[in-house]
Amino acid sequence: MTAYEDFVSQYGVFKKIDAFGYLDYLRQNPDVPRKHGKVVLVTADTPLKASRGEGKTTTTIALIDALRKRGIDAAAVLRQPSMGITAAGSKGGASGGGKASLSHPELVDWGLCGEMGSIEAAQNLLVSFAEKAVDEGRLDTILVPRVSEVPSRSLRQIAVDRGKGDVPERVVLTPTCELMQIVVLSRSMEELGRRVSAMIAGTKDGQPVTFGEFIDLWRITNILATAVMPAYTETREGSPVYVHCGPFANVSIGIPSLVSVELACARHDVVVVEAGYGTDAGAQKWLDIAAREYGAQWPSAAVVVTRATTWNDDPTLSWRYPFHVNRLESLGIATFPLINLWEGEDDQIPALKAKAAELGFRTPVLGNLFRDGGDALSPQLDDFVAALDAAGVPQAPASNKGKSVKDTVRWIAQSAYGVPAERVLERDSFEPSLAEATELCSKAGIDINQLVVVAVKSPATMTDNDSAPEAERTVTLKKCEVHAGAGLLHVNLTTSLTTPMPKIV
Amino acid sequence: MTAYEDFVSQYGVFKKIDAFGYLDYLRQNPDVPRKHGKVVLVTADTPLKASRGEGKTTTTIALIDALRKRGIDAAAVLRQPSMGITAAGSKGGASGGGKASLSHPELVDWGLCGEMGSIEAAQNLLVSFAEKAVDEGRLDTILVPRVSEVPSRSLRQIAVDRGKGDVPERVVLTPTCELMQIVVLSRSMEELGRRVSAMIAGTKDGQPVTFGEFIDLWRITNILATAVMPAYTETREGSPVYVHCGPFANVSIGIPSLVSVELACARHDVVVVEAGYGTDAGAQKWLDIAAREYGAQWPSAAVVVTRATTWNDDPTLSWRYPFHVNRLESLGIATFPLINLWEGEDDQIPALKAKAAELGFRTPVLGNLFRDGGDALSPQLDDFVAALDAAGVPQAPASNKGKSVKDTVRWIAQSAYGVPAERVLERDSFEPSLAEATELCSKAGIDINQLVVVAVKSPATMTDNDSAPEAERTVTLKKCEVHAGAGLLHVNLTTSLTTPMPKIV
Repeated sequence: MTAYEDFVSQYGVFKKIDAFGYLDYLRQNPDVPRKHGKVVLVTADTPLKASRGEGKTTTTIALIDALRKRGIDAAAVLRQPSMGITAAGSKGGASGGGKASLSHPELVDWGLCGEMGSIEAAQNLLVSFAEKAVDEGRLDTILVPRVSEVPSRSLRQIAVDRGKGDVPERVVLTPTCELMQIVVLSRSMEELGRRVSAMIAGTKDGQPVTFGEFIDLWRITNILATAVMPAYTETREGSPVYVHCGPFANVSIGIPSLVSVELACARHDVVVVEAGYGTDAGAQKWLDIAAREYGAQWPSAAVVVTRATTWNDDPTLSWRYPFHVNRLESLGIATFPLINLWEGEDDQIPALKAKAAELGFRTPVLGNLFRDGGDALSPQLDDFVAALDAAGVPQAPASNKGKSVKDTVRWIAQSAYGVPAERVLERDSFEPSLAEATELCSKAGIDINQLVVVAVKSPATMTDNDSAPEAERTVTLKKCEVHAGAGLLHVNLTTSLTTPMPKIV
Repeated sequence: MTAYEDFVSQYGVFKKIDAFGYLDYLRQNPDVPRKHGKVVLVTADTPLKASRGEGKTTTTIALIDALRKRGIDAAAVLRQPSMGITAAGSKGGASGGGKASLSHPELVDWGLCGEMGSIEAAQNLLVSFAEKAVDEGRLDTILVPRVSEVPSRSLRQIAVDRGKGDVPERVVLTPTCELMQIVVLSRSMEELGRRVSAMIAGTKDGQPVTFGEFIDLWRITNILATAVMPAYTETREGSPVYVHCGPFANVSIGIPSLVSVELACARHDVVVVEAGYGTDAGAQKWLDIAAREYGAQWPSAAVVVTRATTWNDDPTLSWRYPFHVNRLESLGIATFPLINLWEGEDDQIPALKAKAAELGFRTPVLGNLFRDGGDALSPQLDDFVAALDAAGVPQAPASNKGKSVKDTVRWIAQSAYGVPAERVLERDSFEPSLAEATELCSKAGIDINQLVVVAVKSPATMTDNDSAPEAERTVTLKKCEVHAGAGLLHVNLTTSLTTPMPKIV
């Protein structure tokens, strides 16, 4: 008799769960008791600066603590914090704060069970094998970047083989690499292997060459053996939390692994999923990539977090918060505004409530979550719980596959950033970059319009000029990059700087 | 009531042991029952090529399996294999082979519990902090290298900030870096922190600047929280095996952590420690660095492994095996030759025995350990066990600290490679390099003669010309490098190529 526990192993203070195995077991044994949890998306206002957290993780933790106090079996699914962010010192990590914290935040922030290190080693090993393939004449150009788990400004652009070849390369943060995307999206080791094989290593005489043509796949899957397993931990209050895969929804997909959410949905009634940065980043990616294109569950409700200062400090940017709330509501998702108060802001509650009412929001939830944790939320959740009870598990809207890349990007700009097609502009370099990506795909036997578009942009802006009047806002397309293994096409948007490799701040 | 088990945590199929805590507990509670195991060093003939393993790990595993079958409580302490070696595909890993294997070799070979990944992240974080210190004007030259867990030829020499500063840097394999040495040598988190603080980050206007002057130490110790804990696993036969810290005794110290051996000695009667590459590398480092200078236990017996072909194939190199056996015996260590036979070599046993007798060796142990494991050894261990029973736990000989660097290197060349002082030569570049290192130390308030010399050399040669007649063999000194945090002075020897960053082969 197999049970969930057979798929769980202790890893120090954490547990790790063989999600591939457990979900397969459930598929093979449809009569085994399981839950069918609803997904709640916790997302946020667009931050004023990339490093300024609104408190999504804190909210997620406080929310499940509060729901559980109300007798609801809620769990959270978090992404593994990037050690880069923690190391950089600009934030305290990404494991909540104050009363709304994980039981072992220091371990989650500083490497969890080594998952990020394994993905780093595996992606760098792919580059090493590509380099060997160059030596052997199988490749002449390498298209996959090396990665580092810690930030370093000077690694943005490097030259390897200094003094001999001086070959230009770039290094990206580990959580943003294609291999991380593959771990996020894969539902079995076999799918993961197939996706790694389909990654385009580089080109030879202009023809794409995939890793499947020259690597021993088991070398990569061996490294990832435990990295594919979500970690399980708890909040300080003892609420269940699954942690798996990396952040950075601005330059990648930035969502937790699909299997970690599916696992949680099989075990709990309400699964609160944190989607990174603003609604224009993490939520857009959960909805339009994970749910529409990769079979992830469409949310039954959403919470959009902001800080009073983020919403109000810059009047030219205060359109963004209601835009996000209204956009999610317009998709049929019951969407709750949540204002995460900081010390000394309690007296703003009446004004904030009035403003929310004026905007036609659902009753806002307000609280100092760092100070009060779930206790701040629990009495305010009647409407939320009622909406969740009323919601089913919605079908995701139709796929965008088959649309042209430009049409898909225009659709994202319209729906997620409020910029209509006629104001989606193109750098001169975009058309050649798209043509090159199309040709690369075509030579690899891939229809580029079957790839899923990933918007790559600054986390702190949606358009070229968020402070401009609505009618003047534009989005500019810059360049494309094919991630054939993950099935993704990165499209760089806006004129804002994106930093795949930040510096220590 | 505290017990050993309180210091043990499950990590998947492995256990991890808080060795710092357990050894401190034993120090604080001298009446707690414990063992005082004897150390047996397993070392080897100098390999014909770096990638050619003689079978030290296989021997170590077979030896403890055989000793345990005889009723002796033996355990092994292994180093964590470098993923570089496994990835490179030139060896099957470093976790034994055939019948003399670990129970989960695939997990040991491919990342263990993430220890190497954590050390990689921490060392690279140190470089990132140094880079920030350059930006802030606290440093103008960085002296610590970045590291990678997987090999890549083209990372040997890189330039960072391509197109802006084009600053030359180098990347070394993670197991060879100073931070790994510090993890190997430290007996508490406090000592580890002190050593990281004392690492020379770089210079400002020619003055050395240590990391202690500008980093938050807790950021490094947080990353290393579980990496400092030895892993516990078993052989296929169920014999206890501790695995901790990295290899590469040719370019670093290449020994398991001191606490992993001390932990094993507190728990078992016989502790078999594997020391990497030939006796001139790993054993020299265990004896002359770990035992003489850092308080590690002097071995009560040694086994020197060779393959019949390594010993015999090249007549100009066959002096090396008896040299190693005799050298260890001359140090008062009961030293047993062990010939690890390969398939089809059983008929060589009489000739090999005769050769060993002719050379005055102790009775040699011979067997096909891959095929037969501990069963091949068990009946041959009477002399070994008798010698071990007779041996006490010897005091290590006196420290070399205080001698001049050149005198110490000459002493190593004489004792470990058989080359007398008058044939220890110097490249023109050596004297300036030594002067520079001396000045750097002096400015940092360190007497260079208090640092412990680490010979950096090819794993496959002891001298400039191992095939030359004895009277013509020379050793050439090339350059020095200060590892102030680890308390080590690297001295590069011989004209052979050393590759801190190998390529994938």
